[in-house]
Amino acid sequence: MAKDKVQIFDTTLRDGEQVPGCKLDTKQKLVIAKRLDELGVDVIEAGFPISSPGDFNSVLEIAKLVKNATVCGLTRAVKKDIEVAAEAIKIAKRPRIHTGIGTSDSHIKYKFNTTREKIIERAVDAVAYAKTFVEDVEFYAEDAGRTDNDFLAQVCEAVIKAGATVLNIPDTTGYCLPEEYGAKMKYLKENVTGIDKAILSCHCHNDLGLATANSIAGVINGARQIECTINGIGERAGNTSLEEVVMILRQHPYLNLDTDVNSTLLLDTSQMVSHKMGMPVQPNKAIVGSNAFAHSSGIHQDGVIKQRETYEIMDPKDVGVSESSIVLTARSGRAALAYRAKNVGYELTKLQLDIVYDNFLKFADRKKEILDDDIHQIIETSDITIESLA
Amino acid sequence: MAKDKVQIFDTTLRDGEQVPGCKLDTKQKLVIAKRLDELGVDVIEAGFPISSPGDFNSVLEIAKLVKNATVCGLTRAVKKDIEVAAEAIKIAKRPRIHTGIGTSDSHIKYKFNTTREKIIERAVDAVAYAKTFVEDVEFYAEDAGRTDNDFLAQVCEAVIKAGATVLNIPDTTGYCLPEEYGAKMKYLKENVTGIDKAILSCHCHNDLGLATANSIAGVINGARQIECTINGIGERAGNTSLEEVVMILRQHPYLNLDTDVNSTLLLDTSQMVSHKMGMPVQPNKAIVGSNAFAHSSGIHQDGVIKQRETYEIMDPKDVGVSESSIVLTARSGRAALAYRAKNVGYELTKLQLDIVYDNFLKFADRKKEILDDDIHQIIETSDITIESLA
Repeated sequence: MAKDKVQIFDTTLRDGEQVPGCKLDTKQKLVIAKRLDELGVDVIEAGFPISSPGDFNSVLEIAKLVKNATVCGLTRAVKKDIEVAAEAIKIAKRPRIHTGIGTSDSHIKYKFNTTREKIIERAVDAVAYAKTFVEDVEFYAEDAGRTDNDFLAQVCEAVIKAGATVLNIPDTTGYCLPEEYGAKMKYLKENVTGIDKAILSCHCHNDLGLATANSIAGVINGARQIECTINGIGERAGNTSLEEVVMILRQHPYLNLDTDVNSTLLLDTSQMVSHKMGMPVQPNKAIVGSNAFAHSSGIHQDGVIKQRETYEIMDPKDVGVSESSIVLTARSGRAALAYRAKNVGYELTKLQLDIVYDNFLKFADRKKEILDDDIHQIIETSDITIESLA
Repeated sequence: MAKDKVQIFDTTLRDGEQVPGCKLDTKQKLVIAKRLDELGVDVIEAGFPISSPGDFNSVLEIAKLVKNATVCGLTRAVKKDIEVAAEAIKIAKRPRIHTGIGTSDSHIKYKFNTTREKIIERAVDAVAYAKTFVEDVEFYAEDAGRTDNDFLAQVCEAVIKAGATVLNIPDTTGYCLPEEYGAKMKYLKENVTGIDKAILSCHCHNDLGLATANSIAGVINGARQIECTINGIGERAGNTSLEEVVMILRQHPYLNLDTDVNSTLLLDTSQMVSHKMGMPVQPNKAIVGSNAFAHSSGIHQDGVIKQRETYEIMDPKDVGVSESSIVLTARSGRAALAYRAKNVGYELTKLQLDIVYDNFLKFADRKKEILDDDIHQIIETSDITIESLA
């Protein structure tokens, strides 16, 4: 069965870049945009053109540069925003305007102080106005995660009629559980007249650590676009991590869903974005953290040395990591020590290994990690005859 | 309806500490163990006593120190391991031995080179032997995530008969999707004779970014213990984040599940563990990252200033964060600028705000973040009369 394609909408340069500490200049943004294009994302959200002259200029330059991906500019449901965004992206090969408005009762009451009817009117007006500039118009129903499904379906139906090509259903506050977010997509897929004319899109925030799971629940239930960022950066606790959703779909072929992302560029892209933004990636970050493929417990190392698949579900090379590492700590066992000793030139007998291992533990209890240099020292200070070593 | 309690099994000092760079000395471990006890976790997995003399000693000292939580020591399904662990924890008020063996076909074939029947035999022997030392014996079915459900049920049934009080169902490689992991728990709950005599436990790894979602799927489907670590540290991409699962259950009261964790200590505990291990927490980490409650985009700031709940699902104080922050960047709007200007003593009229805002954007396009000092400078260099300022 041919796999359905899930579009990857990268918002590293918009939802990611707006975050404390992440600001980039135009030159840096162009380097990242070029890389995202090479990575194979379908859409690059390049910025929010009305927000500042600098951002307008960045979006314009990205629109000129990008060869394959759609280039998208964010707007509020405001005429001036849409005009400025249209101007910034008009030179793009594939331009998209991303407009929208809050649809939850909380947003309608406290942010807009208006009614549901007026919100639908403003949504439709914004989409129709954006359509006068570009064919490809994505609509976001802000705070869709907390929007009543029945009203959300009404909004979707209305904006599809107005010409929206993509419907973004953001869990703006990161509150949804996967089951709930998946059910929302399913409801829209089944209850919105004309839904086949538009693509449903997941835009999930990570306030409770569920952005990735929610996005996957979304595509399992009918969405065909995921909005995400490199390293999961973004407002507050960030967005869905691009690298995670891409690898989940790739490693679960039975879902019959895939993306066009060249996964071997993931680590390098992660490091580029982290470096340019000065935003650290924690060592235990999935896929791209420095420990993501490091095995340190004796139980795991023993297994991996015997057969990689006992503890690894991905080939590290598939995400651009040269190889998994067997790290020696006080929690390592004999198998790992023998393996690493062999790598630096010592072939130990079982008896020798027992002796060296006791000595190794004394070193390892005092030190965070045992390096190759330490292995030489450990073996030299162990009570075995050096002559017998290879 | 009274809420069901989910036990929190913290393995920061075992699965967390075994990781490259995370090693702690006994003194540091005692400080963290004391804090975990204050935090209100139910079980502290203190280490893997057989692994090294230093770890044995740490477990022993933690067993002496901890007042409320159960203190647990890890073992393989090996007599010597169990004896050493029993010795290390015997002084604890509530001692637990955590023993187990791999149950997936991959582990049985490549790691143990044995048969399913022999694995059940070894599992039962280990639990029975551990029972001769302590009443509370937890059994782990390593790689349960990839173990056939029917065989897993047989293993569970056998070890319950041998006296296991807790059944740990680890997704050792972090491969499961939430639906699948939840279904596994449901299957065991419905198909294991005697399941009511034991507690099912979730132990999920984060290789694909799904550990938190899988653990929540587990408890929704009948598990009543979650194994997790502070900041989600642990082997490879880490374990389930304690702070995430605790706050998901707290913020979704309709699940009727809760823990005894004092959430107001979460941020401080996160920082303590990060600092002692030298393991950074990325700014966009859920709950405890430095940006987790920072609002920077103009659209969000406007909402939060009008009504916190438009963009926040948690009160930052509930997790020990003193307050959410309104960060000024080039993506901020007039509402945020007026709010921050007011905080430093300027009450701007609408017209003044328009003028100052244009000047602000010129500054902000060149700078990552606008601080209070910059606000004074921006207002002083704007074309408005200072006399009109408060």
